[in-house]
Amino acid sequence: MRGPRPEPAEEPPDREWEQDLLLAAAYVSDAQYNRNVPFETSPRAIRLYYFYNHWTLRVATYVFICVDLSLALFEEPALFPLPFLATSIVEVLCLTAFFGRLVHFAKVTPQMVFWKDTKNICILVTIALTLLDLIIYGSLEAVQIHGIRWSRAFRPVFLINFPESRQIRRALRSLRNTLPDILYVFLLFMFSVLIFSLMALKLFGDRGLKTAEGSPYLTNILEIAFELYVLVTTANSPDVMMPAYDFNRWYSLYFIAYIIINTYIFMSVFLAVVYNNYRKHLKNEIRKLVYLKRHKMMEAFKILKVKVGTEFVVREAEWKRLARMVVPDISSSHLELLWRISDEGQKGHVDRMNFLRLADLLNIQVVTVNIRKHPLEAWAPRVYQSSASLFVQRMVRHRAFVWVYDVIILVNAIFIALDERSLFISRAEWFFLCLYVAEILLKLYTYEPRAYLGRKQFWNWFDILIIIAALVATVANATIQSARRYNSQQVLDIVLILRILRLLRVIVSIQRFRVIVTTLVNIGPTVLTFAGLVFVVYYAFAIVGMEVFQGKVRFFDPNFTSPDALVCGNPALRGSAFARARYCKNNFNDLASAFLLLTELTVVNQWHVIAGGFALATHQAAKLYFIFFHVVVVILIVNIFIAFILEAFFVAYSLEKSELETVIEKKIQELGVGIQEEEEQDKKPTDNVGSKDGGSSGGDGDHGGAAAKGLYCRIASNKYRTVDALLQRMFESEIAPDEEGPSLDEILSFSPSDMYVKNPNFENSA
Amino acid sequence: MRGPRPEPAEEPPDREWEQDLLLAAAYVSDAQYNRNVPFETSPRAIRLYYFYNHWTLRVATYVFICVDLSLALFEEPALFPLPFLATSIVEVLCLTAFFGRLVHFAKVTPQMVFWKDTKNICILVTIALTLLDLIIYGSLEAVQIHGIRWSRAFRPVFLINFPESRQIRRALRSLRNTLPDILYVFLLFMFSVLIFSLMALKLFGDRGLKTAEGSPYLTNILEIAFELYVLVTTANSPDVMMPAYDFNRWYSLYFIAYIIINTYIFMSVFLAVVYNNYRKHLKNEIRKLVYLKRHKMMEAFKILKVKVGTEFVVREAEWKRLARMVVPDISSSHLELLWRISDEGQKGHVDRMNFLRLADLLNIQVVTVNIRKHPLEAWAPRVYQSSASLFVQRMVRHRAFVWVYDVIILVNAIFIALDERSLFISRAEWFFLCLYVAEILLKLYTYEPRAYLGRKQFWNWFDILIIIAALVATVANATIQSARRYNSQQVLDIVLILRILRLLRVIVSIQRFRVIVTTLVNIGPTVLTFAGLVFVVYYAFAIVGMEVFQGKVRFFDPNFTSPDALVCGNPALRGSAFARARYCKNNFNDLASAFLLLTELTVVNQWHVIAGGFALATHQAAKLYFIFFHVVVVILIVNIFIAFILEAFFVAYSLEKSELETVIEKKIQELGVGIQEEEEQDKKPTDNVGSKDGGSSGGDGDHGGAAAKGLYCRIASNKYRTVDALLQRMFESEIAPDEEGPSLDEILSFSPSDMYVKNPNFENSA
Repeated sequence: MRGPRPEPAEEPPDREWEQDLLLAAAYVSDAQYNRNVPFETSPRAIRLYYFYNHWTLRVATYVFICVDLSLALFEEPALFPLPFLATSIVEVLCLTAFFGRLVHFAKVTPQMVFWKDTKNICILVTIALTLLDLIIYGSLEAVQIHGIRWSRAFRPVFLINFPESRQIRRALRSLRNTLPDILYVFLLFMFSVLIFSLMALKLFGDRGLKTAEGSPYLTNILEIAFELYVLVTTANSPDVMMPAYDFNRWYSLYFIAYIIINTYIFMSVFLAVVYNNYRKHLKNEIRKLVYLKRHKMMEAFKILKVKVGTEFVVREAEWKRLARMVVPDISSSHLELLWRISDEGQKGHVDRMNFLRLADLLNIQVVTVNIRKHPLEAWAPRVYQSSASLFVQRMVRHRAFVWVYDVIILVNAIFIALDERSLFISRAEWFFLCLYVAEILLKLYTYEPRAYLGRKQFWNWFDILIIIAALVATVANATIQSARRYNSQQVLDIVLILRILRLLRVIVSIQRFRVIVTTLVNIGPTVLTFAGLVFVVYYAFAIVGMEVFQGKVRFFDPNFTSPDALVCGNPALRGSAFARARYCKNNFNDLASAFLLLTELTVVNQWHVIAGGFALATHQAAKLYFIFFHVVVVILIVNIFIAFILEAFFVAYSLEKSELETVIEKKIQELGVGIQEEEEQDKKPTDNVGSKDGGSSGGDGDHGGAAAKGLYCRIASNKYRTVDALLQRMFESEIAPDEEGPSLDEILSFSPSDMYVKNPNFENSA
Repeated sequence: MRGPRPEPAEEPPDREWEQDLLLAAAYVSDAQYNRNVPFETSPRAIRLYYFYNHWTLRVATYVFICVDLSLALFEEPALFPLPFLATSIVEVLCLTAFFGRLVHFAKVTPQMVFWKDTKNICILVTIALTLLDLIIYGSLEAVQIHGIRWSRAFRPVFLINFPESRQIRRALRSLRNTLPDILYVFLLFMFSVLIFSLMALKLFGDRGLKTAEGSPYLTNILEIAFELYVLVTTANSPDVMMPAYDFNRWYSLYFIAYIIINTYIFMSVFLAVVYNNYRKHLKNEIRKLVYLKRHKMMEAFKILKVKVGTEFVVREAEWKRLARMVVPDISSSHLELLWRISDEGQKGHVDRMNFLRLADLLNIQVVTVNIRKHPLEAWAPRVYQSSASLFVQRMVRHRAFVWVYDVIILVNAIFIALDERSLFISRAEWFFLCLYVAEILLKLYTYEPRAYLGRKQFWNWFDILIIIAALVATVANATIQSARRYNSQQVLDIVLILRILRLLRVIVSIQRFRVIVTTLVNIGPTVLTFAGLVFVVYYAFAIVGMEVFQGKVRFFDPNFTSPDALVCGNPALRGSAFARARYCKNNFNDLASAFLLLTELTVVNQWHVIAGGFALATHQAAKLYFIFFHVVVVILIVNIFIAFILEAFFVAYSLEKSELETVIEKKIQELGVGIQEEEEQDKKPTDNVGSKDGGSSGGDGDHGGAAAKGLYCRIASNKYRTVDALLQRMFESEIAPDEEGPSLDEILSFSPSDMYVKNPNFENSA
């Protein structure tokens, strides 16, 4: 009758507690209420659930996924070749692990839920297909026929469907949802390209014009369509026009019309469509998420509620048992503080509205605030408080200290730009290093070390890491140099980069820049979602590319004098733009090269030269591969990326101007037990946070208890939140706290189109 | 005591009547109330005001502006050279005209208002500077010293400050407002480029690597910074990486990091900042505009109000006199209809709320709706109603008629793609032309010609113009051919383009496409604003470029065999990428070439080759000109253009989902005297609009009067509105109808930052 207990909290910044709270409620409650507990509740099932969520198993799954994906490095065409037998054994091992994990998941999930989830079906099908492919390829190999390992392109499926990759799945969903809308625009765009191609054929086809390379100019409709598609990406921008322009000035109008319509207008429309869909679906998902969470909390409330007077409430005892169950290592003072925030009238029970807030409460960081003494002060108070020591501390805290070091960094920058081979300069570098080390030591002496190296003191960490790394590398290099009389190139490169990264610190001293940098740093983690998405797409394209193009283009060492070196080992490339630009190393001969080549294609410029090269080396149809890549990556994914950055900036901007406070935060403020994170952040050399203590505890005697113990709630400032979290918060602030909310089925079938209100709002909508 | 009467209406779609109404109110009113009438009211002043607004004077000013701007075509470096004396006389003439216009304006404006307006100051200063420049240049020329006509770069000032160029001024203001915000991002971006340059110098400078052309690779910090700036525009994308990549695979990481940070993230941030500012200021201007209009109407109300009972109202007689004064040619039935809409309870007077709507009422198009008979029917009813004629009409109205013609167009497309020199194909072209002419004649036979060629029947006009032009051109070509036995190239080209443009009609038959095309066509007019803005910026850059770079690069006919031809007449270009790519015709030797060159720079690709070429031909510092152009045009203007397109799509989208109805429209609907524009549009072959008549007039007898006369209000459908109009409407729907509104001074000092509400709205803000 008892639900499995959730994992002890590893405390990610914003954990979603609702599912755990619901389970714990079923466990806490003595009622036989488990209609909403969708799992077997036998002790064995609970152990299995435990085990499934154990971190070792999760990490193991990650490792297997990585191994499976990295197999492409060892298979033909390989960076580090291994025999087929070895890679196939490893692959089968991975597949077994995935299958085992899936079976395990099936055991802890109700059958119906399991089979409804497309994720599980996807994994099963992919496992089956991969096995099939392995068998076919293996048997063909046995009779010396070279097959194709087509299933390798599906490997990212495992990465996507791993439960923790929710962000990547959402990005993919957003991509899929955009497709129907973008399809019509794309068809129209292709139609426009075709009409212009036809015009070009008629206008220029018979003129006998020649390109700069001397080949005939726009004579074949397919070639024209390709050139015009390339012109949309601007990659062949003036070149494709020059022969016509040289012939007659007026023909340039044709190209200008083409560029305005297809490059500027259509590409902006693509961005508009993608952005609009991204917004729409993002908001829908957030609404779904918020309602789902609320639904779970409501269920938990139903399980625990008792009737007191006219209303249903949850009593203190149950409430605290619940919280303790979900966060086993919660301290009693922490729990007491949370209870004080929840229990409005100190009635010994909470009503539904306050109960619903429990999950949010658990996410509030509670910090122990006391005036921490500097360890040196505790150890040798006399010396630390001496006038010389106090002078040093005052000096370090002074604003001029920062300025002096900014100047030192800039002087250092000039030294770096100068030639480092002179003895004076290399000595100076040691001098600068000493100055930086001294700075860190002085700061550690002045500020409380634990505060100075707090979790969010990004720039302090940055300083220390850069300096320590530079120190180690410089010493290592000096050692190698004096011992063997040669510079290790790798170590030197690292030293150089570290030395230059130090310059970044100057930016942080300037307030205006710090704001922009902070926004950019905040976007960072979510940019990684896109890195995941891009990795998945690149991987699939790379596998296909490697199968089709391997060995067609080869790179020879520049000093190699064979005539083949100049045509990338393929005589078909003689005289091509590809060979002339020395692009031989842009090939599909191993996974790393393929990834780099795809990156170059994403950047777009010269992609037609690369596509043309591979088309010459194999077949003209090869261009389709490159066009398809352009449509998927540049038109869809890059636009979603831009949409994401725009959205992040707009949300950050609209919040900068507003004061979106949750009910809980207001409550915390009222109780006087809150500290703003900004307060900690902004005075960069963090004086101990306790300075706030005196001001806030003076309020009301009754609440002074917790505050005196030094427990405070940390209120996250707006600027440390992600777009997701911000939107959730905005949406939560709009639904009435006592609203029942839609039913579970309604929630799951939300669609973006029923979100729009009748009267768009002027302030915000446009 | 009488205010000058406004101009007779030329009826632009959405005229702003408020100023005229205010003036007319002062005129109508017998009260000595002219505190708010900011002009002299002597008969002479009124005549002057009349004359100032006369269309001949406006057109004349436009002509002088065009002449002044086009002078650059005739001045050194000229497309059509004229002596300095001729151009300077014309210029002085233009300046005199501008000055006269300004003096005239000063006469009809209160002194204080005149001198407060920066537009007027700008024009005055520019006139003075131009005269000064002319005198200096002329006297230097007289003593054989070649000066610089620097004032020519200011000529667009006249275009910008012309009263009708409000849209361009707004775009420029939006540009100026964006500058402070973008400056910090730009500095950060430059800092990042410099840090990466320093790294590149240290990492690659000493390796002795060579580029594909054999020149040293990244050895000079300035050159590196330029190359990296170019990499941000992706124009040298893989090329700049290849030598390092060939040397060591891992160095590619440096370039990937650079591209992600600077090309993707920073460029998106630029777009975000520009877009955000664009939005913010757009909304602020609209708010200002709406409040200003309301303020004027309020003043007019104050002038005319009389007390009836407890409230102030305007009586029917004054109301009608006012309307008649502002629109002298209004018909009495039209006026009666408007009055009926205004006077809610038929009390013979309107209250303030209803009075304020007068300006909007005057903008409502009132159309005479009656079942128009086909002229042929009126002329020969028997024949037109005969069964054969009715059969033809039914056939033409049938859906299959459209399909048959779509097939014909597609077959025609195949014929066009085929070789036209065969006799069969050229005969077929005549056949197709006949088919198209027949289609138009049939449609004109079936549909009422005035309805078929209505003002908004864009595609019908398109059809007819294309066919008539093709007919004329084909006949002309055939005549020339048979007379002189040669094809006129120009005429043939036009025929070809017209023939292919016909294919566009297929798109319009497909509903899904029609929606996108309609949105694009609606954006069209405002895109012209950007054309204006781009023209202004291009003109200034072209003048500077022509002064600096004229004659440095020359184009020789491809058949010209002088060795100079290959190096564009400048030995410094020998072996340069510029000469190799045959870019000689991209030069600043006349205004047309300069504009085309700037267009190429806007498209970005290969801009570094062009910049490099001109730097070689003159001086390395020339690159600064190109970098500056890139920052202004690509980073600022193109981003504003994208922001505009995004905004247009989003506003269109959010309105598609909503029913934003103004009070007036509701009223019109209630009275049953409205017709939706959509109803006219959507059934493309417009049956006479009268079909709606029967359904709507059946309503209430009392209101039937106007409706029976066939007068209806045309309610503009959402899709035929601009972003501006839509936003105005949205904002108007939000301010309470009885709100007093802020004072004039408050309105004029609105700033975007006080627009934001405390709690951002989830549905719309993000």
